[in-house]
Amino acid sequence: MSRPVILSPPDSVTDRPQTFFELRMKMHMAARDVEGMLERVLPQPRGLHKRLHEAMRYAVFAGGKRLRPFLVLSCANLFGVERPRALRVGAAIEALHTYSLIHDDLPCMDDDDLRRGRPTTHVAFDEATAVLAGDALLTIAFEILSDPATHPFADVRCRLLAELAKAAGNAGMVGGQMIDMEAVEHPLGYDETVALQRMKTGALFEFCCEAGAILAEAAPQDHDRLRNYARDFGLLFQITDDVLDAVGTVETAGKAVAKDQEQGKATLVSILGLDGARQEAERLARRAGSALDPYGAEADDLRDLALFLLDRDS
Amino acid sequence: MSRPVILSPPDSVTDRPQTFFELRMKMHMAARDVEGMLERVLPQPRGLHKRLHEAMRYAVFAGGKRLRPFLVLSCANLFGVERPRALRVGAAIEALHTYSLIHDDLPCMDDDDLRRGRPTTHVAFDEATAVLAGDALLTIAFEILSDPATHPFADVRCRLLAELAKAAGNAGMVGGQMIDMEAVEHPLGYDETVALQRMKTGALFEFCCEAGAILAEAAPQDHDRLRNYARDFGLLFQITDDVLDAVGTVETAGKAVAKDQEQGKATLVSILGLDGARQEAERLARRAGSALDPYGAEADDLRDLALFLLDRDS
Repeated sequence: MSRPVILSPPDSVTDRPQTFFELRMKMHMAARDVEGMLERVLPQPRGLHKRLHEAMRYAVFAGGKRLRPFLVLSCANLFGVERPRALRVGAAIEALHTYSLIHDDLPCMDDDDLRRGRPTTHVAFDEATAVLAGDALLTIAFEILSDPATHPFADVRCRLLAELAKAAGNAGMVGGQMIDMEAVEHPLGYDETVALQRMKTGALFEFCCEAGAILAEAAPQDHDRLRNYARDFGLLFQITDDVLDAVGTVETAGKAVAKDQEQGKATLVSILGLDGARQEAERLARRAGSALDPYGAEADDLRDLALFLLDRDS
Repeated sequence: MSRPVILSPPDSVTDRPQTFFELRMKMHMAARDVEGMLERVLPQPRGLHKRLHEAMRYAVFAGGKRLRPFLVLSCANLFGVERPRALRVGAAIEALHTYSLIHDDLPCMDDDDLRRGRPTTHVAFDEATAVLAGDALLTIAFEILSDPATHPFADVRCRLLAELAKAAGNAGMVGGQMIDMEAVEHPLGYDETVALQRMKTGALFEFCCEAGAILAEAAPQDHDRLRNYARDFGLLFQITDDVLDAVGTVETAGKAVAKDQEQGKATLVSILGLDGARQEAERLARRAGSALDPYGAEADDLRDLALFLLDRDS
């Protein structure tokens, strides 16, 4: 089956040749390294609760682009942060992201049987184990960050912990998921949908990027720049995700598609239309990149990543 | 209906008159203060995700003895820790404890409809909201601890965060819950059951007590003493809980009883017998108290609390 090109970056967006080859290589290496770190920090399956460890690992090692850890690494790299520290933060975020996927897939939530082309955790194990594996992955994210190996300074670790908790909790990811569920009965307008997405998926992207500045103890304006990039990046990610959901196939997306439509949820694509969504995505990719102008060519990976999203097929 | 006295402390255990009146008053005041703190740190119901906030508050403000925060306050008090700091840690623990109750009660887990005499969260709201409310309460526990208001020193906050994550995660509470579920199909012996309970309920009690020493930046031997007390206290708590489950009524316990038996799970009572369990509980209460000998009369609240458990009816 041929690979559908859903959105592709127009020449106007960039003046550098974009093959994304280099970016793909860097993403691949980052994914490999963060998986190595996850291998070290996740518990080995053993003891009477072996099944819990197996479920945690089943869900975490299911492939995936490891986009969030790549954001951490790229942002940390702007300030010369030691890679093992950024990898630990990336592993914590990936554990937390995986917990959110496990719980979102539960029968009482989105009721999805398929994720990244494989049975979801509650299908491969059982519902109770899936709930517990999610709980344990959320908890271990905080455990990883609280370890001095993440950063020798306790105030840096505390700031990471505080910001992750805010991004993941009731004012961030979990709150956004609640609004998303309520939206089935109370359809939202554009501004509300953008606000919802900023909580549901955006807050964690913002944390990923700001984590680079936190690890580096960078200046307040660095935090602001990375947050501005991340805000546009997050919305761009969501728009391209909605496009995939609307026009993708199960085969290319590796999960159930057209679910939003079925459930009658307003998405950014259903509000803007496919053409409007494409234009908005391009605008966001451009603006995300320009937020990083002060870093010059050092930030090319992050700019390329935004453009890369325009071309994503999964 | 008359109040059943299940276990009562024999004179041999203590040489002081035990009316528990003073202890009950202190517990009442501690519960009131920690609820005041929870009122401040939990989100007010508002916004499109109001339902999430309502479910979090429904579960948290359901009464309960607030035993865990009382342990934090009493242990912190041994070292003269400022009460507001201990109350914040107590509030974090109570949020986390409540999350564990919400998730444990879910249909896919213990499937309980009643908790503290009221419909459980998934009955009063719905399953998805209950999962999310639990997730948000777990997350906010870490958020509360990471706030400088909990302690001005970041290394103290980080230690609290690290120890709470360990106590609550795959090597502690969540792991214990997994073993407990597996035990339906693979009944456990005495040592395994003790090990399970130490993970499932004991680890959090150990954290409560050690938190007092962490907040005070106390000496390593203080940490050891409080952990020793907490280890016996936790097992004592579990034994008396099993006794209640075996002989209590729904009315006095405020939750479903005799569930362990129905599910064919081995409990400390089914292994030791009622008389054996009573003797073991008394032994543990005595040993728990003597672990605190170096603190003299300052630790009387903690000693009384262990004796009080022998007399519990809920």
